Amino acid sequence: MAEKIFRVDMSDLSVKSEAVPTAWQGLGGRALTSAIVAAEVEPTCHPLGRNNKLVFAPGLLSGTRAANSGRLSAGAKSPLTGTIKESNAGGTAAQLMARMEIKALIIEGIPAESQFYALKVTADGVTITPENNLIGCGNFEVVEKLGLVDNKECGLLSIGQAGERNQLSANISVKDPEGKFRSLGRGGLGAVMGSKGVKYITLDAAGTQKSVPLVDSDKFKVAAKTFAKALLNHPVCGEGLGAYGTNILVNIVDETGGLPTKNFRSGHYDKHEMISGEKMSEMIAERGGKVKHGCHAGCVMQCSQVFVDKEGKYVTSGFEYETIWAMGAHCCIDDLDILAQADSIMDDIGVDAIEMSVTIGLAMEAGIIKFGDGAGLLRLLDDVKTGSPLGRILGSGAAITGKTYGLTRVPVVKDQAIPAYDPRAVKGIGITYCTSTMGADHTIGYTVATNILKCGGFVDPLQKAGQVELSRNLQIATAAIDSTGLCLFVAFAVLDDETALPAIVDMLNARFGISMIVDDVTALGSSVLKTERAFNQAAGFTNAHDRLPEFFAAETLPPHNAIWDFTGEEIDEFWNF
Amino acid sequence: MAEKIFRVDMSDLSVKSEAVPTAWQGLGGRALTSAIVAAEVEPTCHPLGRNNKLVFAPGLLSGTRAANSGRLSAGAKSPLTGTIKESNAGGTAAQLMARMEIKALIIEGIPAESQFYALKVTADGVTITPENNLIGCGNFEVVEKLGLVDNKECGLLSIGQAGERNQLSANISVKDPEGKFRSLGRGGLGAVMGSKGVKYITLDAAGTQKSVPLVDSDKFKVAAKTFAKALLNHPVCGEGLGAYGTNILVNIVDETGGLPTKNFRSGHYDKHEMISGEKMSEMIAERGGKVKHGCHAGCVMQCSQVFVDKEGKYVTSGFEYETIWAMGAHCCIDDLDILAQADSIMDDIGVDAIEMSVTIGLAMEAGIIKFGDGAGLLRLLDDVKTGSPLGRILGSGAAITGKTYGLTRVPVVKDQAIPAYDPRAVKGIGITYCTSTMGADHTIGYTVATNILKCGGFVDPLQKAGQVELSRNLQIATAAIDSTGLCLFVAFAVLDDETALPAIVDMLNARFGISMIVDDVTALGSSVLKTERAFNQAAGFTNAHDRLPEFFAAETLPPHNAIWDFTGEEIDEFWNF
Repeated sequence: MAEKIFRVDMSDLSVKSEAVPTAWQGLGGRALTSAIVAAEVEPTCHPLGRNNKLVFAPGLLSGTRAANSGRLSAGAKSPLTGTIKESNAGGTAAQLMARMEIKALIIEGIPAESQFYALKVTADGVTITPENNLIGCGNFEVVEKLGLVDNKECGLLSIGQAGERNQLSANISVKDPEGKFRSLGRGGLGAVMGSKGVKYITLDAAGTQKSVPLVDSDKFKVAAKTFAKALLNHPVCGEGLGAYGTNILVNIVDETGGLPTKNFRSGHYDKHEMISGEKMSEMIAERGGKVKHGCHAGCVMQCSQVFVDKEGKYVTSGFEYETIWAMGAHCCIDDLDILAQADSIMDDIGVDAIEMSVTIGLAMEAGIIKFGDGAGLLRLLDDVKTGSPLGRILGSGAAITGKTYGLTRVPVVKDQAIPAYDPRAVKGIGITYCTSTMGADHTIGYTVATNILKCGGFVDPLQKAGQVELSRNLQIATAAIDSTGLCLFVAFAVLDDETALPAIVDMLNARFGISMIVDDVTALGSSVLKTERAFNQAAGFTNAHDRLPEFFAAETLPPHNAIWDFTGEEIDEFWNF
Repeated sequence: MAEKIFRVDMSDLSVKSEAVPTAWQGLGGRALTSAIVAAEVEPTCHPLGRNNKLVFAPGLLSGTRAANSGRLSAGAKSPLTGTIKESNAGGTAAQLMARMEIKALIIEGIPAESQFYALKVTADGVTITPENNLIGCGNFEVVEKLGLVDNKECGLLSIGQAGERNQLSANISVKDPEGKFRSLGRGGLGAVMGSKGVKYITLDAAGTQKSVPLVDSDKFKVAAKTFAKALLNHPVCGEGLGAYGTNILVNIVDETGGLPTKNFRSGHYDKHEMISGEKMSEMIAERGGKVKHGCHAGCVMQCSQVFVDKEGKYVTSGFEYETIWAMGAHCCIDDLDILAQADSIMDDIGVDAIEMSVTIGLAMEAGIIKFGDGAGLLRLLDDVKTGSPLGRILGSGAAITGKTYGLTRVPVVKDQAIPAYDPRAVKGIGITYCTSTMGADHTIGYTVATNILKCGGFVDPLQKAGQVELSRNLQIATAAIDSTGLCLFVAFAVLDDETALPAIVDMLNARFGISMIVDDVTALGSSVLKTERAFNQAAGFTNAHDRLPEFFAAETLPPHNAIWDFTGEEIDEFWNF
């Protein structure tokens, strides 16, 4: 069985199976989705129109037994930002697609009639069926009604009500091993799926090989072991993330004065302990939830958790720092039970938890509800679920909510909400927000690793020196990691343990029978960034868009009275490579 | 008394009177507002933030007795488009400012407190007073409560509820000689005024000179007479516009197959006669309204009218073709009485009638109300007035309404609604929409004059040949006319009567004691366009933004099955001058 690309055209409901062009054979994950979007999508097209394409691709190591290799990439022109977009998530889909040797699934066109469909993907092809029963359902109802909660051999990609309505904050949900969801979160890819009339996609690998073939399985085993060991030995990957989840960051980031509070008015939230990872783990342990949990098979970090209520009943999992920050410090709501409930609702409606929660803070800024109003937060999410006019506004994300209410303190870059780290107090991440090819995004060049966690050395977060170079190096490395199917969090180990990156290269070589060297990884990352940047330039983006909102340069941030003081010229140095 | 610039800083409520810098002494109207905005406003600033500036400037001939010289220009960075913006209107303000020898009024900063103010402008300076009583009032209530309806010596610039809320479709209303309103309509300048906390500005010229000094008054008189004669002799300026108003165009544009109907699905509206200028004039005459009416003293064209209801009671004036088209053919509402009522409501709330009416059509596209629902139109305008969430969406204009409801058939360029002429069937105006420095705008290069009315020759509207050159020539000429304070409609005479342009040049020479030649007018126009373009480029605009929405290239327009078939390269030729 050879690797292939499945291409679905929703305009005429046709399906093709195509051989993988030579140029794309060495690519996977983000490198592949960005290459396909750049090659096939007109950069100035309407993101929700007939000319956009939605591409899913497992990573190069997906389907192997490499630790933490279960990330699926999705790519398209983003309706939120207007830029190229890649979003990746855990869950079971990447491994199932890899097992079926599907290099990419491309969905193009839009249906002639106003009708939703279901796609069923197997190793042999894709069938398209009109879907009516599950329209209007949230993601949890979809997975339950399809009977897929416990089916380990069948994956699910689904959109909730937000995606059906083409809302710009809509995500795509990826079923995880427990039948819950991980999210292809940012950039509104759920709206692209909705615009194509696709409610859900099942990925049925029953009867196929259990893992992908390896050209040199002995060499792979050795490298995989070295790699897993590097992860387990690292204090962040092997310890911190498992013990407290990503929410370990609340106390740490607050301590550095970079936890954006009350819509970026302070870097310190006086109730931060109430929403911290430590507090969360304590609550989970007391109530009998799961402190550690993996979002895909083969994860050794276990940064997820199962958050339960006082009665021990499941509420949510994958309860991340950025979401908790946004509803917590940003909206000043200090009740983790409310935040967990809201997190589950957002997963069900299918909205990006960062975009939506930052937007709720703007609803507070606009006076729609008050800062700190947890019950109000839940009411607003109900508006998003039902699609009321207010829900339509909020579902369109932070930039549009800001414009609709005439706000000036709107934390977005390229119309995507700025997450969880104030760029005035963590200047490296500010450079990442500005220069990201996909709008404000922390994961695309996570300088927090070096600015705060001191992985890969230390660059003082309050000083300008070294930040552009740091962000550039991390963005290049991340573009490569995002192409392997490995979880971004392996980067902590890669930065600190000199055995980790060679082990990744060895795994790739053993998987495909090639002879990459470490420098090739950097070259791949650079090439991905340049491809993405070229798409954006053709879509009309310039250096003038690589800027933070002006309030970051006009208002100092307590407690350090930090200010955003990069000039345009200094930021633009980023692209000199 | 020398000409001066008044500068008001709303951050500290200070006022300065400044001498006019040499470089700006030969500029007026749009040339001056664009020069000031380009020189003083950071192109990437937030349009509603502290760094934007709102500039008012009468034209070079304002305050003289030149026919149709009463246009006031307002400029800023537009919150709707993100580009530089100049909008001009009739009414009494330009002449009053010119009489007071105020070359420009610049309003900068934003108030420290959330408080609205009134500005009182006299020849001596500006006073700033907190305003509370009139907050929440529509424009008609403002002018009445201020007792300014019949005060010919005191002008008024005011915003309605939409401007107070920083809504992107908000306009600035300019009192006309009857105490009704003309609009600085497009680009959301009312939101800029609202963001600066200015509810209204009075312009009190009582006791000042009745007209501006002329260096050579005899020469001026001769030229002014020649100019007025050219206007009166022209079939459009001297006859058509007076008899039927701009709404004379409904039947004409429908006949050419370019009247966009049901959100740009056809170029022919089967009920077009019901909303035509002929029908309107007949109704006005029967009911005892005024068929002809000028928006400012000295207007010889009289394209306005006073539309009355069945009981002969005043409903609206300045009831324009583009507004009637948008609510009529675009929304499929064929009842002029409802359209007139809606026109008056929009003047009162203070929203751009084109942007808002095109947006109402998108609300129909989204299924919020049905096409043809006149009562629904009035209900939606009430939402805008009260600022409900739905009203907030609609008040944000067509682009945001399209995004909020996930629409793809959204007729905007640079986020400003496309007016009244389908670019597929009137290709010259399509080039104007694309290349305008201010988003889709017909007045900035009104090729309809030559494509349809056959003024200045004829360029076949259905063919590509000659359109780029036509649009370029008209945009250059318009930029110059917009700087003189002359109404754009003088262009019809300028295109056809060889005495008209030399007469304008003679008037300018006689007014200022200079010796311009006709070529200098073209040079001025070119220079204005280049200044504006440079601002936009620094703000992040590229050729990729000079494009129509993709549905114009994908859907043919009945009855001619016309299509938008310009390539990007062909459009970009526009800027080769």
